[in-house]
Amino acid sequence: MTIKLIGISKSTATLSVIVCLNELGLPYQLEAPANFAVDTKTEDYLANKHPFGKVPVLIDGDFKINESRAICRYLASKYQGKHTNTILIPKDVHQAGLVEQFTSYESFYYDPPVSKIVYQEVIYKFHGKESDPEIVKQACEDLSKVLDVYEKLLEGKEYLNGEYSLADLLHYPFTYYAYSYANRSDLWDKRPNVKKWWERLRNRDAWKKSLEDIKS
Amino acid sequence: MTIKLIGISKSTATLSVIVCLNELGLPYQLEAPANFAVDTKTEDYLANKHPFGKVPVLIDGDFKINESRAICRYLASKYQGKHTNTILIPKDVHQAGLVEQFTSYESFYYDPPVSKIVYQEVIYKFHGKESDPEIVKQACEDLSKVLDVYEKLLEGKEYLNGEYSLADLLHYPFTYYAYSYANRSDLWDKRPNVKKWWERLRNRDAWKKSLEDIKS
Repeated sequence: MTIKLIGISKSTATLSVIVCLNELGLPYQLEAPANFAVDTKTEDYLANKHPFGKVPVLIDGDFKINESRAICRYLASKYQGKHTNTILIPKDVHQAGLVEQFTSYESFYYDPPVSKIVYQEVIYKFHGKESDPEIVKQACEDLSKVLDVYEKLLEGKEYLNGEYSLADLLHYPFTYYAYSYANRSDLWDKRPNVKKWWERLRNRDAWKKSLEDIKS
Repeated sequence: MTIKLIGISKSTATLSVIVCLNELGLPYQLEAPANFAVDTKTEDYLANKHPFGKVPVLIDGDFKINESRAICRYLASKYQGKHTNTILIPKDVHQAGLVEQFTSYESFYYDPPVSKIVYQEVIYKFHGKESDPEIVKQACEDLSKVLDVYEKLLEGKEYLNGEYSLADLLHYPFTYYAYSYANRSDLWDKRPNVKKWWERLRNRDAWKKSLEDIKS
């Protein structure tokens, strides 16, 4: 049975799951709510899909799960190594621990500033709303400090934990929008290790397929 | 070899790991940096303990890992069921996925407002710094909405995923400080399911031991 993904192609969280599905070689069917603002806040949606009225929600046969990072962990645990060679969460307990450590850097250090930049400079613009230059300035400063740390972490490594993993994957959506749509590519490009890391990520087949998927 | 935990007893993130160690029945040695503000920002600490200059860091034999949520996942994967019966991350892939889903609610919906309340009303006060009533008011409103959702999620259940899990455990530190030290107990107590959930959590032996541990 094909996996069903309730989400919208412009949602960063939905995009994380799409990359994950493509990395694992899993066919899926994207089902976008017809009227996002209304359909994700109905009593039925809140009770049966996502209690906070968000996307994405994944339906895999009889099983239903929401929250992008949780969905990716679930998909990796269940399907990795079955259709492609990509291992997102290593079997070794120590390596898995380190992937979670880098995933935590994404969630609590990288995501807060980069998501602010994308909200202010891409999403607000898309909705015709003014951005706040002070918030953008502060977020760029915060992200710069985080990327200085990443520059050191990536020294001599292709990916955050050496091998490609869930930790790298979760960086895709906001990096993509900040780099390509908020015209903030200099933040990544002026740091050689970070620049090469993002080039490596951009060149993965699963990412290229994901960009095609959200265009169609 | 005894597990070493670099952290401070007043740190909420350190406390999460302490509860986890106690739930799993693991002896540990807490090692507090002598001068926290200075010792966690040295070149050596940033290179070898935590690149963002934070606590906790766990040292388990030759293995080193930082970030509280990552440490807890590592400890559960390696040690759960060995010394106590507590299972923090179920073996079943679907149940584990749902635990991650509830853990994500903690990280991205519950933690932002409750941590603001604790910073403003407990930590700032401790450091003799003024709190901002507007930030506190907004955080209380945001947390109220989250707790309304929790009230529904906990209907007919003892814990978020039915059985006690990592998802519940990660709620301990900030809930404790907001409930007991910021005098915000009404936020939990006026919601019957949430009230009973927090009572259940407070009465767990591992939590009581953890409070003793951080007093000594």
